[in-house]
Amino acid sequence: MFRLDDRLAADTVVLGRFPLSLLLLMNDARFPWCILVPRREGVTEIHRLGADDRAALLAESCRLAERMQAAFGADKMNVAALGNVVPQLHLHHVARFRGDAAWPHPVWGRGPAVPYAPEALAAARRTVAEGLGGGFEAAS
Amino acid sequence: MFRLDDRLAADTVVLGRFPLSLLLLMNDARFPWCILVPRREGVTEIHRLGADDRAALLAESCRLAERMQAAFGADKMNVAALGNVVPQLHLHHVARFRGDAAWPHPVWGRGPAVPYAPEALAAARRTVAEGLGGGFEAAS
Repeated sequence: MFRLDDRLAADTVVLGRFPLSLLLLMNDARFPWCILVPRREGVTEIHRLGADDRAALLAESCRLAERMQAAFGADKMNVAALGNVVPQLHLHHVARFRGDAAWPHPVWGRGPAVPYAPEALAAARRTVAEGLGGGFEAAS
Repeated sequence: MFRLDDRLAADTVVLGRFPLSLLLLMNDARFPWCILVPRREGVTEIHRLGADDRAALLAESCRLAERMQAAFGADKMNVAALGNVVPQLHLHHVARFRGDAAWPHPVWGRGPAVPYAPEALAAARRTVAEGLGGGFEAAS
């Protein structure tokens, strides 16, 4: 049975779910940063997913990236499946801006996360989740 | 008309082409590291590709990742579209090993590349390209 990895759960807030994937928001106010986690037990690589799940993940990823880039006005989206620390398959989506706290480097390993204040978290949640479509169901 | 970005061209060796993408090998002997570049002019984000190109990129990426993981015996594949420095859409595929020169961090920004010796380059080329399939045509 699928169960979200403990470290991912600790570092993020659940925004809701697509047909295949959980949608998480990294609790780091420095970057608009979302993570898709396909709800499939024991899968660590995209190429290990079946054909239908691969296509669903791609569709969910593109919808999320398009929404994030438009809603935050990002200069560039960074999309990555790394998993060296947390093997459970998860796909990062980070909205990047020229001059942000890590630019032009990737965001991983750039110092400790800065947790959201409650109002900023609520705003980020709304910005990502509203109008996402694609079968997305927001967490209550 | 599609033209490979100058910096990508300088940092890599062309291994060949899939139906959609050029397949490049990063000239850095520290990591088995390939890059797919969809041959589409002016595209900087996966979500800007049309539906057929998205599906083709996913198929080529999965075939490459599967081949690299099997051929190099990698512990983990890192697959990422970043593009903060080179905006032309390109998808990194890095075979990672516990204890490699950057583990468990991502490979970007981990010091200068170590160019391959000629024999090692030929071996890496063979290892990646042989039996890749999926419509791949090796560069001569």
